[in-house]
Amino acid sequence: MGTNDLDTAYFDEQLYVRNVAVDNVIFGYHDRELKVLLQKPKLLDKWTVAGGYILKTESVEEAAHNIAFMRTGLKDLFLEQFKTFGSPTRIKDEWLDIEKVFENAGLNPPTEAWIRDYSVSIAFYTLTEFSLVTVQKASFDEAIEWWPVAQLPRMMFDHALIIEEALKALQRDIYHYPIGYELLPRKFTLPEIHSLYETILGKTLDNRNFTRKLLSTGIIKKLDETRNIGAHRSPFLYKFEKKQYDAALKNGIFLGF
Amino acid sequence: MGTNDLDTAYFDEQLYVRNVAVDNVIFGYHDRELKVLLQKPKLLDKWTVAGGYILKTESVEEAAHNIAFMRTGLKDLFLEQFKTFGSPTRIKDEWLDIEKVFENAGLNPPTEAWIRDYSVSIAFYTLTEFSLVTVQKASFDEAIEWWPVAQLPRMMFDHALIIEEALKALQRDIYHYPIGYELLPRKFTLPEIHSLYETILGKTLDNRNFTRKLLSTGIIKKLDETRNIGAHRSPFLYKFEKKQYDAALKNGIFLGF
Repeated sequence: MGTNDLDTAYFDEQLYVRNVAVDNVIFGYHDRELKVLLQKPKLLDKWTVAGGYILKTESVEEAAHNIAFMRTGLKDLFLEQFKTFGSPTRIKDEWLDIEKVFENAGLNPPTEAWIRDYSVSIAFYTLTEFSLVTVQKASFDEAIEWWPVAQLPRMMFDHALIIEEALKALQRDIYHYPIGYELLPRKFTLPEIHSLYETILGKTLDNRNFTRKLLSTGIIKKLDETRNIGAHRSPFLYKFEKKQYDAALKNGIFLGF
Repeated sequence: MGTNDLDTAYFDEQLYVRNVAVDNVIFGYHDRELKVLLQKPKLLDKWTVAGGYILKTESVEEAAHNIAFMRTGLKDLFLEQFKTFGSPTRIKDEWLDIEKVFENAGLNPPTEAWIRDYSVSIAFYTLTEFSLVTVQKASFDEAIEWWPVAQLPRMMFDHALIIEEALKALQRDIYHYPIGYELLPRKFTLPEIHSLYETILGKTLDNRNFTRKLLSTGIIKKLDETRNIGAHRSPFLYKFEKKQYDAALKNGIFLGF
């Protein structure tokens, strides 16, 4: 049974931590586009980010990794916890509506009172190259799709806010962590990594300044190869310096573009 | 009853959210020193950051504000959530030791199983000018004291890690939020705000570059007054521009010192 299956065991408080969910905003990047992976549960006309409860035998980080793996089939993605949401009202009213939909469809909603009692969500974001992903539906989902972050469908609970905060955190973190290892090919050009940063930040970055700052961190290395991308355009290829990259991931760096 | 009193009601799951605590790393700044406010519970020889459980009627942010208020007597401090900690083992073993200490002292430890079952802590940090604070003990505490962040006493559970992560978050956030309003006098000199940033970051910042970047944000304003701080030294005073400051707090700015 996966953490995400909406069956009875899913609400079993012998197995799962009560009152606490993990939500994972899975961002996908490909060819200058940033998207987010959303699910639409059966019977409902709203979408959610990927989420689930925490097994009592796992840490919150392990739960978030498992959720990302179940939806994308990819392991060890860049994962960052950015905020925990919790208030008496964040899911309560809408949950009562959901129960009515279940009942009208002849289904039994879960009876455990804690589900509608108080809900804390520990939110993470994950980054992946979305062309690599084969998305995987949970048993309770009617659909799972990539949506542009600027054009979301109707979201359940406070999930629109969760995505908004995830994007803010990503835009902040991009100055401190060398995000990109998972999002670019192993060998890439400076214009490619420049586009990645511009897409995520949603703004233009001065080319010379960007390149100078990025090279000064020592996390990328120029190779002795070029790539032909058109008439008279053969930019050099670069790769990440794994050792420096890992140190920067651990300790943070400062990219003041 | 305060959220922090370790009496029976404190563990009452009718009142409090199960499995979830809020910990608040209260940083104090004064005269180029950064400290953290710690408590030592009676009977135990380890220290903790300020913490408590969440009433079912309050949001996690309200719980964190209440904890800061109960310990410092100050309201509306700068408060930032930075990470949530949760794993099957983060408090379990140590909690069993604590129960033994209670029992040996003839006290009844709480019987609710969820306390030692799985513990999630939503961690915040708070900033205050520590000379303004009259610290306030909880009923269960033997001591409450300011400790230098570089010289902590023996800490309970994973609280040393929580402080380490709080400091990392503060050092990251200082580039994006105009932290300082609560930490400086209403009118301050450029050397004073420069020292604040150097103390928190734990490193030297180029004076001209720092001043140029800070002024370019528009969050501080030069006044028509100077302060005499010694022979031939009368630097101009500055104050925060409340409107720009609030906007920067809300939307973030980017201080690439």
